[in-house]
Amino acid sequence: MKIAVLGTGQVGQTLAGALAALGHEVTVGTRAPDATLARSEVDGFGNPPFRVWVEAHPQVRLATYADAAAGAQLVVNATNGRGSLEALELAGAEQLAGKVLLDVSNPLDFSAGMPPSLFISNSDSLGEQIQRAFPDAHVVKALNTMNAYLMVDPGQLEGGRHSVFVSGDDADAKLTVIEVLGSLGHQDVIDLGDISTARGTEMYLPLWARLWGALGTPMFNIKIVR
Amino acid sequence: MKIAVLGTGQVGQTLAGALAALGHEVTVGTRAPDATLARSEVDGFGNPPFRVWVEAHPQVRLATYADAAAGAQLVVNATNGRGSLEALELAGAEQLAGKVLLDVSNPLDFSAGMPPSLFISNSDSLGEQIQRAFPDAHVVKALNTMNAYLMVDPGQLEGGRHSVFVSGDDADAKLTVIEVLGSLGHQDVIDLGDISTARGTEMYLPLWARLWGALGTPMFNIKIVR
Repeated sequence: MKIAVLGTGQVGQTLAGALAALGHEVTVGTRAPDATLARSEVDGFGNPPFRVWVEAHPQVRLATYADAAAGAQLVVNATNGRGSLEALELAGAEQLAGKVLLDVSNPLDFSAGMPPSLFISNSDSLGEQIQRAFPDAHVVKALNTMNAYLMVDPGQLEGGRHSVFVSGDDADAKLTVIEVLGSLGHQDVIDLGDISTARGTEMYLPLWARLWGALGTPMFNIKIVR
Repeated sequence: MKIAVLGTGQVGQTLAGALAALGHEVTVGTRAPDATLARSEVDGFGNPPFRVWVEAHPQVRLATYADAAAGAQLVVNATNGRGSLEALELAGAEQLAGKVLLDVSNPLDFSAGMPPSLFISNSDSLGEQIQRAFPDAHVVKALNTMNAYLMVDPGQLEGGRHSVFVSGDDADAKLTVIEVLGSLGHQDVIDLGDISTARGTEMYLPLWARLWGALGTPMFNIKIVR
């Protein structure tokens, strides 16, 4: 499948690398490819600049948000939640129309320091805002409840026996995402319902952040025992 | 131990019954005991009136919030989140001072129907509001992430191999609660930190509500796989 991964941060890199390794034709989208490749500093989490990652993944193309989305069947929003709507505007509504838009972002608000709160919650979600802004895209919220390494390799913990959620209005789009999740090794995919159920998974993030603090590692996930 | 369980709803009944069965001396607190016992209608969830429960649990006393709390070493807030602060005011700050106050309530807002949103979130929590209102009580938030039947009998699911959280400022109070949780069968108790971490567990409730919808049963819990 032709996949666009929007976002060059750790989540975008990890998803793009894993999807390319599965044989997909992956293009990473960024605001300005030349500027992204010119960066030489490590990011705030100590990760090397994007060009180091690109050199290690020659099969992955880098393009503008719009060019990446234009050629894709599946578009993954792996941008920072604060910048997601703007990045998707740059990708362009016409490039997203009719496509599956897998949204893995979270509306995290770090303005008061750690742990973050949410800048959207309760009566709305970032997933819904994206769906409203791009009514012709088929938005599916998923994977936003775990860190990037577990998104692409859930088998690292208890043989992958933990849970991941999908929220979205379009049944076929959810099936496409569920298939991708399965190919990454996810064994327990729970369909929560329409895109408004993204409020549930996004509002889990404050617990996730505190669990990271309490456990001393982000390598954990929830299993729904039932 | 002498325990006051404030609240006569399903959560209060279930906790009071289970704690009495463990040999604790349990008093259920309510606003007006005579009025509580006079009720003959089933509640909104189809549960029988409280007096039916009382007749089946002769070892449990019923008293005013204040009388129940006055004689207790551990006070459990099992009232509706909307009414918790008022119920605790009626119990009285002097009756709560120096005691462990186990808060199992959630700030659920049903004003827009189901599923509920939260009337406190992000930069505050009901647990913190209770701690601020009663600074001499040792508030510990716990058990608010599962339904009443699992609170008292976690072994019903996968032999109890799922998780429960504690949040609170007082280490000794948390140890008391952790001991009670263990006696109820909880095997994986995660100390999230101070009472502000109650924001995390309270904000999990919107996901909990949607999981109930998706799974068709409230008999589930999360296990933190790590």
